[in-house]
Amino acid sequence: MDFPEMHFASDNWAGAHPKIADNLARHAAGFVAAYGASDLDKAVEQTFCKLFQREVAVFFVATGTAANSLAITSMSRPGGVAFAHREAHAIEDECGAPEYLSGGTRLFPVDGDLGRMDPDKLAHAIGQFDPAFVHGGRPVGVSVTQSTEIGTVYSLAEIDAIAKICRDHKLPLHMDGARFANAMIATDSTPAAMTWKRGVDLVSFGGTKNGCWCAEALVVLDPSKAGEIPFIRKRAAQLFSKSRFIAAQFQAYFEGDLWLETARHSNTMATRLADSMAASKKVRLAWKPQANEVFAIMARTLVEQLRAQGAVFYPWKTPHSFAGRIADDETLCRFVTSFATTPEEIDRFGALIA
Amino acid sequence: MDFPEMHFASDNWAGAHPKIADNLARHAAGFVAAYGASDLDKAVEQTFCKLFQREVAVFFVATGTAANSLAITSMSRPGGVAFAHREAHAIEDECGAPEYLSGGTRLFPVDGDLGRMDPDKLAHAIGQFDPAFVHGGRPVGVSVTQSTEIGTVYSLAEIDAIAKICRDHKLPLHMDGARFANAMIATDSTPAAMTWKRGVDLVSFGGTKNGCWCAEALVVLDPSKAGEIPFIRKRAAQLFSKSRFIAAQFQAYFEGDLWLETARHSNTMATRLADSMAASKKVRLAWKPQANEVFAIMARTLVEQLRAQGAVFYPWKTPHSFAGRIADDETLCRFVTSFATTPEEIDRFGALIA
Amino acid sequence: MDFPEMHFASDNWAGAHPKIADNLARHAAGFVAAYGASDLDKAVEQTFCKLFQREVAVFFVATGTAANSLAITSMSRPGGVAFAHREAHAIEDECGAPEYLSGGTRLFPVDGDLGRMDPDKLAHAIGQFDPAFVHGGRPVGVSVTQSTEIGTVYSLAEIDAIAKICRDHKLPLHMDGARFANAMIATDSTPAAMTWKRGVDLVSFGGTKNGCWCAEALVVLDPSKAGEIPFIRKRAAQLFSKSRFIAAQFQAYFEGDLWLETARHSNTMATRLADSMAASKKVRLAWKPQANEVFAIMARTLVEQLRAQGAVFYPWKTPHSFAGRIADDETLCRFVTSFATTPEEIDRFGALIA
Amino acid sequence: MDFPEMHFASDNWAGAHPKIADNLARHAAGFVAAYGASDLDKAVEQTFCKLFQREVAVFFVATGTAANSLAITSMSRPGGVAFAHREAHAIEDECGAPEYLSGGTRLFPVDGDLGRMDPDKLAHAIGQFDPAFVHGGRPVGVSVTQSTEIGTVYSLAEIDAIAKICRDHKLPLHMDGARFANAMIATDSTPAAMTWKRGVDLVSFGGTKNGCWCAEALVVLDPSKAGEIPFIRKRAAQLFSKSRFIAAQFQAYFEGDLWLETARHSNTMATRLADSMAASKKVRLAWKPQANEVFAIMARTLVEQLRAQGAVFYPWKTPHSFAGRIADDETLCRFVTSFATTPEEIDRFGALIA
Repeated sequence: MDFPEMHFASDNWAGAHPKIADNLARHAAGFVAAYGASDLDKAVEQTFCKLFQREVAVFFVATGTAANSLAITSMSRPGGVAFAHREAHAIEDECGAPEYLSGGTRLFPVDGDLGRMDPDKLAHAIGQFDPAFVHGGRPVGVSVTQSTEIGTVYSLAEIDAIAKICRDHKLPLHMDGARFANAMIATDSTPAAMTWKRGVDLVSFGGTKNGCWCAEALVVLDPSKAGEIPFIRKRAAQLFSKSRFIAAQFQAYFEGDLWLETARHSNTMATRLADSMAASKKVRLAWKPQANEVFAIMARTLVEQLRAQGAVFYPWKTPHSFAGRIADDETLCRFVTSFATTPEEIDRFGALIA
Repeated sequence: MDFPEMHFASDNWAGAHPKIADNLARHAAGFVAAYGASDLDKAVEQTFCKLFQREVAVFFVATGTAANSLAITSMSRPGGVAFAHREAHAIEDECGAPEYLSGGTRLFPVDGDLGRMDPDKLAHAIGQFDPAFVHGGRPVGVSVTQSTEIGTVYSLAEIDAIAKICRDHKLPLHMDGARFANAMIATDSTPAAMTWKRGVDLVSFGGTKNGCWCAEALVVLDPSKAGEIPFIRKRAAQLFSKSRFIAAQFQAYFEGDLWLETARHSNTMATRLADSMAASKKVRLAWKPQANEVFAIMARTLVEQLRAQGAVFYPWKTPHSFAGRIADDETLCRFVTSFATTPEEIDRFGALIA
Repeated sequence: MDFPEMHFASDNWAGAHPKIADNLARHAAGFVAAYGASDLDKAVEQTFCKLFQREVAVFFVATGTAANSLAITSMSRPGGVAFAHREAHAIEDECGAPEYLSGGTRLFPVDGDLGRMDPDKLAHAIGQFDPAFVHGGRPVGVSVTQSTEIGTVYSLAEIDAIAKICRDHKLPLHMDGARFANAMIATDSTPAAMTWKRGVDLVSFGGTKNGCWCAEALVVLDPSKAGEIPFIRKRAAQLFSKSRFIAAQFQAYFEGDLWLETARHSNTMATRLADSMAASKKVRLAWKPQANEVFAIMARTLVEQLRAQGAVFYPWKTPHSFAGRIADDETLCRFVTSFATTPEEIDRFGALIA
Repeated sequence: MDFPEMHFASDNWAGAHPKIADNLARHAAGFVAAYGASDLDKAVEQTFCKLFQREVAVFFVATGTAANSLAITSMSRPGGVAFAHREAHAIEDECGAPEYLSGGTRLFPVDGDLGRMDPDKLAHAIGQFDPAFVHGGRPVGVSVTQSTEIGTVYSLAEIDAIAKICRDHKLPLHMDGARFANAMIATDSTPAAMTWKRGVDLVSFGGTKNGCWCAEALVVLDPSKAGEIPFIRKRAAQLFSKSRFIAAQFQAYFEGDLWLETARHSNTMATRLADSMAASKKVRLAWKPQANEVFAIMARTLVEQLRAQGAVFYPWKTPHSFAGRIADDETLCRFVTSFATTPEEIDRFGALIA
């Protein structure tokens, strides 16, 4: 290719941040206890506690899908129904893993604009189920995605609204935080403020998309409720033997607030990209990005031109709440920034669409 | 501790081989396609094909338990019964993951001396089931562990004997190769000779215990039979996004036959350790080790002394076929060597038990 | 209660038709082979073949939920998604049994007026899934309910339209026929014409609601595709030992076309009830009934009055496609007729609402 | 056939006792609440309470396999292992239903003479598991079969011994009572004395083999522990709509102690049959029968002769504890008596083998 590439395909197309790669290499030597019992594992767990400003239980797993699925498994009961946004990753992109791993829990799709569940619609959906009526199934939990699949975030007040509904129905609240750090930066918040202070009980805490190789954790904010998870995790083939290879990544991730730096960088790059789109005559911004994903609408013909010029990005399914707002000869495309995105890439792309 | 440690707890207490750690770091930069679609992933798949001397399908997963469980899942059918040695990892050490992930497949324990299924007992066990009799369940596959949980190996002729039984009953044969390389060295064999040339259909190919951080693959030796596995893997939350982090480990693992070198080293260290035990007046060798695990019988009082002197090792459950051969005041202990074991450790330990 | 009751709660509040009860009693004596191997079982299977005008495979099960769930299980594959009307029994009234028993198959809700899937919406829903895309899950089958949960029926042309979509996507088509006979009468059709001649592959054939005690069967219209079902059924604890007690019910059910007579009676009673509602000043008919369920809208205050006067019936959740058509002080109520409904009950009720 | 048949194939080859058939017919008319809410259902539940001399929770299900599987499901937890005799029905004859329905609970086979678990072997088997060790799985319950698969019974003292082990390990104790009545008669006991007074927590209470058509119940002896079972049952497609058809059978079953009468008759017939075998020169009794199953050893050639003379019975797999006690030209055969067995049949058979 004659043009240098501009990478917006996904934040999981980036590799590992050098500090994370280095720390992993640094921990390669020596013998330590397996299966999460090493000093490093324990130290990283303490770091999680410190960050969340309370004792938490931390379970490393292999993928975000695993974290979500085991969270739902841990909440579920026979006939269980869990609620998530219609376009949540757990519903649209996990090949049925939550249903399968939880023994058949149904994921009930809740609508809402721009990737966020509408609290009224959530309350209505839950309210349709009588928890004692054996035929209909029964609510067992709610899952929010923060930041959402389409790069928006729930404000703290919006999380409050959802958490209140959960409390009213005595349901645990799970947060899919595959892009937790990006959301935290976007809301100018803290781990504690964005989770348990709002009423969140379980977090799928993702590091992979924000500069790790493979660092995902299921964080239980009240460890007294984590009872079954060690067995749930092992039974799901998600307990790493050389667990320190996750711990070492998280150690570097948190060290010197690297994770905030990488997330801030990603979000800043997304804003820069959105600005260039807002100024463009060729594409229009679908909605205002809040984290590290930018969605633009453009002519189908333009997609191929931009690709030929080195831009790597993909079309995206039109969100339900956005139906009818894209013309037949147009297409909605997703652009994801990451710790590895450079201003130069953005600006080169900006020049192409100016 | 005043004494330098001697590490025999497990091969998963070692970290990553420097060449593997380095290669992983080397691949940290740049953008590549996620979910196994990168050039590196594809190149490593080609290396697998070359090593196995035929086209194979390769599925990276997070753990050996995952590889075993998904292999069993891929073989299973309603009412399925799979056969494995009574002390197989899939039966004793996976928290029921194979049963859970396969929707309830039963693992039928087959006896046999020293960790190896006795072919006659296997044939008898399978023969008890009438595949058309709906009440009893029906055979769906057989799993051998190579090398076994207790450091022995099946000879090629022994694998032949088991494969013949599988063919007679039209059952697929799976090999749990968490210590595949150690077994290959022990049998002076090749990947092809130890597997499909014998009749093995599926391999849990482990790299983790032999010097990787986390590198496990389910290898399907006839790719035309791998049809459902992409979905089986994703549904089990075992598809890595930054898949190249596994690929980079395997690349270095195979480069310049590093994997054979590390396995040969482990096995040699085990032999050295066994020799020192055979010469010892304080411990006696339980059985002749063939791969990288050594089992010794010693007085319970000695265990604590050796630990106080820096030896790290653990007691092990007496194998069924070994029952009655350990006195009440004795204990059976396992010693595992790895790529990181040094002759000095062995010799220091040898001096302690001389 | 001073008033004689008028029973419209459900067709499963009725007991067994005298001819069915008698035949069951008649078969109580003597010894016959268990688990479906008796002459009576085989004779009844032949009757099914005759009725369907082709060889079919018949599997008795305990409940309609079982028939539906095992049908979906038999269609499913890892990551499977099955499509049904949003208000289908399998989605709304089976406590997640299909998801649970099928190992996590997702039921995708499809909209459509009056309980029937809209073919365009079905095609659109299926079309959203790329069967080779491992993340999204993949279509594995479609289920129609005939007659529907709200007493309407698919015309044969409407079944054709859905079957064509299934063929286009190579998906099996299941029919939930808990009220199969009522639908057959309503469409003036035959078992063959309403099923395999249209492209239906599997039928949950219900006898219970139409005069049996407990007589449900999963009918596979092409027996060469029934391979796994004997094991699927036994594994789900749905294989009766004294299977003839189901067979004896079906024998009487089909004898002299009793089943058509009872269904015709139910439907006729429903029409009579609907006519009285159409003429009523107190209630209004929600939609035209086609089988044996009638839905009426009435003031909430009236419900209690009618109950006090002996009418037994229940409110029903407003169908999605009917939203906004019921005032706040009104309620939608369901009335179900059965083989045991009498014209006198109808007319007494008609007088109350005149 | 020229000879009148003598029916010893199974107690599920018999049909329904006339009183049970009649009562079912008697309840055919009229409308009652579905799904177990009728007055008759409630009255029968009260009868269960009276019989068990305490409040119990009763859940009708379709098959004994369902009762066992749902009992095990209700006890289980992730990584669960349940213990039963090696030849228990749940292990050998349910096509993996307990594993499947419980999400992968393993059934651990425990040895013991003549169908009864040896308490020491049970204690040893449980003791091998460390309930906090995530790899090995963890004990979740114990199941005894009373009477056993081979017609023997646990004495009350033997149940005590097993219950003590359960209490020591805080494990629930389930009793597979497919032939509960036969065991009660054999032990000259009562429902209370044979269950909760011993420490049994859950009973699969079978009526089918003792004269009902289809009447199985899962009885929870402490109803405060039955919490999840309504959902577990419905989710497993085991909730009957016209539930009164089970209730009516149980009503007649218990009325006037019919169930004790039929069980006593069956046991008496078995004793009569055993006596004729003990006196026979052609067959020998394998072991002393205690309930309604008799096992005899005879020449293979004799089997065909007896069948040709009208005897209906089947060979049986040699119990593990009986291995080596049957010559190559001999076969072990099972003879089951039931409420419908007549002394004439026995005596005719006795004459054949005299």
